[in-house]
Amino acid sequence: MPELRHNVITQEWVIFATERSKRPEEFRKKKIETKAVPSRVPTCPFCPGNEKMTPVETYIVPDTTGWRVRVAPNKFPALAYEGKPERLFQGIRRKVSGVGIHEVIVETPDHSKTTALLTDREVESIIQTYLHRFKAASADPRVEQVTLFKNHGEAAGTSLEHPHSQLIATPVITSLLRDRLIRSLEHYDEFGECIFCHVMGLESQEGTRVILETEKFVCFSPFAALSPFSLTLMPRRHMACFAEIKDSEAAELARILRRTLSKLYKGLEDPDYNYVIRTAPIEWTGVKYYHWYVSIIPRLTKTAGFELGSGMFINVSLPEENAAFLRGIAVE
Amino acid sequence: MPELRHNVITQEWVIFATERSKRPEEFRKKKIETKAVPSRVPTCPFCPGNEKMTPVETYIVPDTTGWRVRVAPNKFPALAYEGKPERLFQGIRRKVSGVGIHEVIVETPDHSKTTALLTDREVESIIQTYLHRFKAASADPRVEQVTLFKNHGEAAGTSLEHPHSQLIATPVITSLLRDRLIRSLEHYDEFGECIFCHVMGLESQEGTRVILETEKFVCFSPFAALSPFSLTLMPRRHMACFAEIKDSEAAELARILRRTLSKLYKGLEDPDYNYVIRTAPIEWTGVKYYHWYVSIIPRLTKTAGFELGSGMFINVSLPEENAAFLRGIAVE
Repeated sequence: MPELRHNVITQEWVIFATERSKRPEEFRKKKIETKAVPSRVPTCPFCPGNEKMTPVETYIVPDTTGWRVRVAPNKFPALAYEGKPERLFQGIRRKVSGVGIHEVIVETPDHSKTTALLTDREVESIIQTYLHRFKAASADPRVEQVTLFKNHGEAAGTSLEHPHSQLIATPVITSLLRDRLIRSLEHYDEFGECIFCHVMGLESQEGTRVILETEKFVCFSPFAALSPFSLTLMPRRHMACFAEIKDSEAAELARILRRTLSKLYKGLEDPDYNYVIRTAPIEWTGVKYYHWYVSIIPRLTKTAGFELGSGMFINVSLPEENAAFLRGIAVE
Repeated sequence: MPELRHNVITQEWVIFATERSKRPEEFRKKKIETKAVPSRVPTCPFCPGNEKMTPVETYIVPDTTGWRVRVAPNKFPALAYEGKPERLFQGIRRKVSGVGIHEVIVETPDHSKTTALLTDREVESIIQTYLHRFKAASADPRVEQVTLFKNHGEAAGTSLEHPHSQLIATPVITSLLRDRLIRSLEHYDEFGECIFCHVMGLESQEGTRVILETEKFVCFSPFAALSPFSLTLMPRRHMACFAEIKDSEAAELARILRRTLSKLYKGLEDPDYNYVIRTAPIEWTGVKYYHWYVSIIPRLTKTAGFELGSGMFINVSLPEENAAFLRGIAVE
């Protein structure tokens, strides 16, 4: 019998379709690409030596031989760097000029080193870079919301192979984030607790959907996961904004993120995926009702007319089975 | 300069990225499949003669040689036909047993006839079938929401080539539909008008985003279209629920839908697309604030980490340019 489950944070219902269900192994990439990826590609704009192919860098983590992480404005930015956010209100129409920030974070000089293959130390440099750029973008008075995300593989929306993440800072807040802030505030007012802390506590206690746990973080597949192998990586300490993270937490986040991505890499043969840091804007630092986390979303299925039309997802796998499968994948 | 536009119905902001923009022609399918599709495929479960490969039909539109449209339960349904929606409330957790209806609507006996290639009369039979099945599903006391949709092509989430649509009736209402009902009600309370009627009136008056207009329908690309060539096909007469449609309107809807799909077929070389009927549930029949319509969503771009994370879309084309391009495509 199929089952519908409810996400208490987003209020979304998800159909778990047992008639169509697949075993975790069936989500492995069918064709394993045996093509060896070189560590440097002469035409790649993100490889060392090709820095002139991108705009001038805004930040680097230096290394003995150059840089370990490099940040530059996107050459084809979704938003313009210059200008003020002019707002136009005309009857029911609203427009804002498209100003903001769009940066590319090159995660490693090595073209072939996907995040799952980096060291904990290298991933820590990426996390610290996220933190630096998040704070820098948040300090721009034109900016209302900062989104840090990664696209890995074609199904996840990237054609550039060199490991990189992106930051987009917009002059408006999205209805998705506003709705979650309001819903979690309402939960706080009603129950006197952070709904995210409650969910994480339950997941940690039950354990059936947990992939990895450390002193400071829990990684689990949510009770009402929208799609196969969707994962949530959440700090145990209550923090509304990603900018509140401490150095010791950033180091531990790097390690658990790297280990989680390694499990996906080994278990599902390097699946395409997105990850994104879901956080309150910096001005909500310290609020008791919101809680930042990382969503990791392997792109193993496609959304079709039903999802687009109803807003409801059909998940052909169970988070309990996905989690058990990933727990069984040994990583360093 | 890029521009952000606001959708007054969903409250979503969309980035129109001029730096990345493409001309309408660039969205044409790169490879034109020259493979001729046969009108009957021996292994296809939807071809005439193979009716035993699907569950027993629930409805047909008869024809001199058999059927013109045929409806049967999905062989691998997302929801179970039998049983009551048992509800489980346990702390913050909510579950409902996955009961409901999942039907396949085979649109034509001819395997090779995509909707764009059918006659107005044939499409009218499909619309009348939608109406019949929508009413039948809505009469089931377990059902809260009925979604009618079509997946055309692999990027739109289907692997079955034979032209078909689907109906899924769920025992819960989705937060997406509930939010839209509430937002449009609030607009009605504040301004005393249907927000959809207002938007359609503006679009029809301005004309720059209009693809086709008839006495009873307007087809336009929305001011804040989420993706290239996304289209809205809306009845001029105010109706909250699809079930309120009259026969004369169904005939005209068939013609304008067929002509719109033909423009996409000719202009973009048979793109993959979804369409969906966005409607209030039948119990809202007659309400003044909601308005049903058809969304047509060509699947020409991919959602990536930014969209998943922020909920905001980046559109690399302008609806005005898309509309002008489609107006220029001659169809019968």
